[in-house]
Amino acid sequence: MPSRITHVEITPVAFRDLPLLNNVGVHEPFALRSVVEVRTEDGVTGLGESYGDAAHLDRLRAAAARLKGVDVFDLHAMAREVVDSLPADTSGGHGMGLQITTSNTADRVFSPFEVAALDVQGRLVGRPVSDLLGGAVREEVAYSAYAFYKWAAHPGGPDDEWGAALDPAGVVAQVRRMVDEFGFTAVKLKGGVFPPEQEVEAIRALRAEFPDLPLRLDPNGAWTVETSVRVAEQLDGVLEYLEDPTPGIEGMAAVSARVDVPLATNMCVVAFGHLPPAIAQDAVQVVLSDHHFWGGLRRSQDLARICEVFGRGLSMHSNSHLGISLAAMTHLAAATPNLDYACDTHWPWKRPEDDVVVPGVLEFAHGAVKVPTTPGLGVDLDRDALARLHEQYERTDIRERDDTGYMRRSAPGFSPRSAHW
Amino acid sequence: MPSRITHVEITPVAFRDLPLLNNVGVHEPFALRSVVEVRTEDGVTGLGESYGDAAHLDRLRAAAARLKGVDVFDLHAMAREVVDSLPADTSGGHGMGLQITTSNTADRVFSPFEVAALDVQGRLVGRPVSDLLGGAVREEVAYSAYAFYKWAAHPGGPDDEWGAALDPAGVVAQVRRMVDEFGFTAVKLKGGVFPPEQEVEAIRALRAEFPDLPLRLDPNGAWTVETSVRVAEQLDGVLEYLEDPTPGIEGMAAVSARVDVPLATNMCVVAFGHLPPAIAQDAVQVVLSDHHFWGGLRRSQDLARICEVFGRGLSMHSNSHLGISLAAMTHLAAATPNLDYACDTHWPWKRPEDDVVVPGVLEFAHGAVKVPTTPGLGVDLDRDALARLHEQYERTDIRERDDTGYMRRSAPGFSPRSAHW
Repeated sequence: MPSRITHVEITPVAFRDLPLLNNVGVHEPFALRSVVEVRTEDGVTGLGESYGDAAHLDRLRAAAARLKGVDVFDLHAMAREVVDSLPADTSGGHGMGLQITTSNTADRVFSPFEVAALDVQGRLVGRPVSDLLGGAVREEVAYSAYAFYKWAAHPGGPDDEWGAALDPAGVVAQVRRMVDEFGFTAVKLKGGVFPPEQEVEAIRALRAEFPDLPLRLDPNGAWTVETSVRVAEQLDGVLEYLEDPTPGIEGMAAVSARVDVPLATNMCVVAFGHLPPAIAQDAVQVVLSDHHFWGGLRRSQDLARICEVFGRGLSMHSNSHLGISLAAMTHLAAATPNLDYACDTHWPWKRPEDDVVVPGVLEFAHGAVKVPTTPGLGVDLDRDALARLHEQYERTDIRERDDTGYMRRSAPGFSPRSAHW
Repeated sequence: MPSRITHVEITPVAFRDLPLLNNVGVHEPFALRSVVEVRTEDGVTGLGESYGDAAHLDRLRAAAARLKGVDVFDLHAMAREVVDSLPADTSGGHGMGLQITTSNTADRVFSPFEVAALDVQGRLVGRPVSDLLGGAVREEVAYSAYAFYKWAAHPGGPDDEWGAALDPAGVVAQVRRMVDEFGFTAVKLKGGVFPPEQEVEAIRALRAEFPDLPLRLDPNGAWTVETSVRVAEQLDGVLEYLEDPTPGIEGMAAVSARVDVPLATNMCVVAFGHLPPAIAQDAVQVVLSDHHFWGGLRRSQDLARICEVFGRGLSMHSNSHLGISLAAMTHLAAATPNLDYACDTHWPWKRPEDDVVVPGVLEFAHGAVKVPTTPGLGVDLDRDALARLHEQYERTDIRERDDTGYMRRSAPGFSPRSAHW
């Protein structure tokens, strides 16, 4: 007996974000997300979460309109409906500003519906989502401290609670606080903001302060091949991996051939079609999965398996997200045997009260989140909180993430830094 | 709440087989299989089926002893127990005589337990196994007519109901009968038995008799690279694919570089570790999956996804099997969107009464089997039939498939033909 979808609700929300710097600009005062609710004829509702950009929301709504009547166990049928719903125009709505623009549109749109369907499945059969993914191989999932260069405040606003981090000392202080509060056991620094020498100094300062923590640096392709090789040599033996030093599979392959540090990516391999050339050229040694653009949890498991078979390490990418995504990431990570690294998360940058799930399930202890063991994702929607975050969305005029445009309001001549240094 | 395994039963069975010829010898009078029953604390039993060779049975029993107490949804834990149960000696028990000896032992042993676990899962949640694999994308699964050169009778025995097929006319008559009875819409000829010129003639005769049916030829690596290229040229435009003309990834790559017909394999790519070199060398264009040696249904889906991502076609291999395997193959094929070809099956070579499942579910119509829609695999064990086939196992002295040894009783000088012609 099928469990047909009777209703799909998509609610855009906004939550406060801080002026975190990256190679394409600076985070705006609000991050956008979409909350997806999929209800079936059994009266069960499953949750998904995705980007909140306007073009993406339009696509989610077009897909949602076709999902009514589809059995929530028939993920293949859901995927077909999503594909058939896509407009010819796939521009915009990539959810990450200018940073990742070559992920697969169908996979991005399918993702929150797949997660919600698995949530429903789990609730129907009384099993956590990790069980539907083959079973949790770990009881908790480790996340990394995700450090950013940042301004003390949004332009014109008061200093935020984290303050500025614009030099090595500021980065170390930020990570110290994050590690103390959350217990993180790995550290990633978002680079691509300052000349590479300064970012190398920040990594060295982190190494001095945290001699035992694995460190990663991610300049989002801000460097040339030559600079990437030089930095990799300078930080030889210091980094766990170097993430996207330079843009493109060919560029990464050119670096990879000349350095010892593992190269990771969530920029040049962001869709299944990128795997064959990246593997053929040995362009990257570590792939960062992200179920939001890899087409959901099952397809992210496909990616994991491909990484295992083709001898690639596996880590996990994040951008600003809420609790539904954290739950989904945690179930996926728990059910992925060959996840080799602590996952990225932007969680510390979010105010605790800025969430749409009932609090209490997803708590950090020694840098890790316990895998929920209740049916489905294990998180429930807090409708008051959802209404509040939706109201924040209605109040802001942000409709597409635009780190570059926001930066240009402060620095009119700013250009995104791709292979810049 | 877990559904822990309380009992695993492994029953070796034998069923009548016919003197089918191949490159390593001839099928013995009985084919061996193992029937796996996995029972959980809920009182639900799931079914699996695998090879019946003695060395394999020993490994299945060693694994079964470790599976008690494992949650039937925790496929990762089941896989770990299987790996931990394996003895150091992995020789023998490959289930296919000398033909496939490099498949992964852990995957072979895990397979029937995984299928049985999915059967239990489906029964527990009231869903067909295809739903647990993402949903059936087709209501029925097409199989191919699997033609063999054969003797009229086992040595010393009476002619069987199929009679001899030792020349093109015999092959055509055999396929005609098979197509008329089962409605097959594709034809595969097992070659490697006669000099390639004669097998080319058989394919031409099949083409003349069945102008519209896709044709495949599989000499199981009996030819050299040069012969393979010559035959591929002779049959250019006639074959749907040419399967394992020559042994090994390097040999296949050498052929592949010089011919137009797609090369398929179930010999040189039979484990995940074979995929990277085969893909790097473009050694094959089509991979035949087989859940019995690829580690069950979910891992076969991993293989399917890898084929899709890396631009390989996907077909399905079979060797002699019973109804549990046919049900599992049908669910897997139904839930695999990129299955590009009709699946192999030895089904017509088996007497209808030689089975362990209650008849009536798996019927062929126009060459296809309807995907069961009842919970689990959709087939139930016929305990009387199981006892009868187990008694046949007890009565025969066959304990390891040995097509070569059996052939040598009639032809003492016989040698398996690997790159022979």
